[in-house]
Amino acid sequence: MYLDKTEIQKLNKINRLNLINSITGIKTINLIGTVDKKNVTNLAVFSSIVHISSDPALLGFFVRTNKQVKRDTLDNIVQNQVYTINLVNSKIVKQAHYTSAKFDKNISEFDKCSLKEQYINNFIAPYVAECKIKIGLKLKEIITINSNNSNLIVGEIEQMHFDKDIFFSDQTLDLEKSDAIGISGLNRYYKFNHLCDLPYARISELPKF
Amino acid sequence: MYLDKTEIQKLNKINRLNLINSITGIKTINLIGTVDKKNVTNLAVFSSIVHISSDPALLGFFVRTNKQVKRDTLDNIVQNQVYTINLVNSKIVKQAHYTSAKFDKNISEFDKCSLKEQYINNFIAPYVAECKIKIGLKLKEIITINSNNSNLIVGEIEQMHFDKDIFFSDQTLDLEKSDAIGISGLNRYYKFNHLCDLPYARISELPKF
Repeated sequence: MYLDKTEIQKLNKINRLNLINSITGIKTINLIGTVDKKNVTNLAVFSSIVHISSDPALLGFFVRTNKQVKRDTLDNIVQNQVYTINLVNSKIVKQAHYTSAKFDKNISEFDKCSLKEQYINNFIAPYVAECKIKIGLKLKEIITINSNNSNLIVGEIEQMHFDKDIFFSDQTLDLEKSDAIGISGLNRYYKFNHLCDLPYARISELPKF
Repeated sequence: MYLDKTEIQKLNKINRLNLINSITGIKTINLIGTVDKKNVTNLAVFSSIVHISSDPALLGFFVRTNKQVKRDTLDNIVQNQVYTINLVNSKIVKQAHYTSAKFDKNISEFDKCSLKEQYINNFIAPYVAECKIKIGLKLKEIITINSNNSNLIVGEIEQMHFDKDIFFSDQTLDLEKSDAIGISGLNRYYKFNHLCDLPYARISELPKF
């Protein structure tokens, strides 16, 4: 099948959303936890978390900034400068998915979606107790993307929490064992199965293909 | 397990790379195809492709810009303004992985890694024939990230190609059937298995959790 720019434009809104959101492959699915100045917590599901750098340890995510979209997560991060990223696992996929419903600002998605707030080491943003991999971040930079109405939010990792049994000796995390999940499109979820490990790629050690 | 910023800093370089590259969960794995002014093609594996917007249809990826790192992909995009993104499947995982070896600029990774160039509809950047999902993009914006030495490259989709049998009626692509793969850390690859589909989340239709 072949679609060009004009044909993409002609798709109805939902079909275009589904197609363009699945064309790049799997997206990691995470919950971002924040709190506002009145101590109302917020939890929102994001599929745009990206690794930016390992040293310094920086992660990014994208937020639409047009007025039609609620952006409690970004408002809270700007207020308090900190947030948590919590990897969704298959046991809480439904709860995580429903945090995207349009709850009022004074209502916490933790309560409505039956997820438990957890506070660790005086970090003021709430973690999700049910998640096995959790990251605490401090806001570093907000970058405007002129091509559309969005911002890239860059944060530096302050804390990381994970179960010891999903930790390989080379320090990678076992995503199959961690039961982490991904999404394609807006609502189709996938689990991961380990395929293979490959060595660092050197020209002097090219295999036969 | 708990690690704070100081402990992350103390990890050796490879361990830190592995940990910070796997902490966010799965990353989609794609090959970016480009060509320079002398018609030398280039193919490079990237795990930082992100969906930015569906209308306009924008995708992004990150490139380090410090001098130690070769950046043929970015140089070629700046020269010709176009590039292709090709989803890696399990049959070519090894070939895709080895495009990251440091080949000279005048050598094409297509040749060295046994992947076939494909040209469609006069688009001058090369597609990867072996890939089932292929996207042709035009450079839209290069954004500097001040927190580290990197750029976010934003492109607009000009063309999309995929097999009809991986196309659902709601226009999402079947990533399990497409045999697409993901990566965690620097070298651990995963396949995807469909877990569930969930409806659009409305407050009025909250399920019992």
